[in-house]
Amino acid sequence: MAFSSDKMKKIGLIDTHYLFCDLYCFEPGQTQKPHAHHESDKVYYVLQGKGMFKIGGEEKELNEHHITLAPAGVEHGVTNHGSQRLVLLVLMAPNPNVPHSH
Amino acid sequence: MAFSSDKMKKIGLIDTHYLFCDLYCFEPGQTQKPHAHHESDKVYYVLQGKGMFKIGGEEKELNEHHITLAPAGVEHGVTNHGSQRLVLLVLMAPNPNVPHSH
Repeated sequence: MAFSSDKMKKIGLIDTHYLFCDLYCFEPGQTQKPHAHHESDKVYYVLQGKGMFKIGGEEKELNEHHITLAPAGVEHGVTNHGSQRLVLLVLMAPNPNVPHSH
Repeated sequence: MAFSSDKMKKIGLIDTHYLFCDLYCFEPGQTQKPHAHHESDKVYYVLQGKGMFKIGGEEKELNEHHITLAPAGVEHGVTNHGSQRLVLLVLMAPNPNVPHSH
């Protein structure tokens, strides 16, 4: 794990043709702004801390060992609204950085 | 989490067109026998305990918070060789249960 005072830090763990897997490390107050991936699903698993997850129209707090899905095309973002560090395991598939034929 | 005295237990967490995500719960001594998925990558993340992972020709012990990849086409299996329960977060993509066009 690694943190940055500037902004939430992403650490790449696995990157294949089909998927990638990152750690997202948030200091208190840090945010990943809402955005969408049109053709990839994203899974968030909370390893440490708690965060506020906005997915589509819904906002919910998730704690350690909670998991949620941001489906392809749905806007999603995360804020560490607590006072402790937040660490997420993030999986995305298909890997949006790999060109796919359609 | 849930365990079975018969064999390692799979608990489905997320299942989409693109991926699935399960918990695998092993009592001491339980195994997932080596097998391969020809067109899907599998990611293992150790949530609790430790296990012996056989991936291709390699065998390695992984502990809590370790992650590894079983690439598509490569034989892989897991044994809980320790004396504590083993819990894995398992992600597979593409979802092998969804028909894909080629």
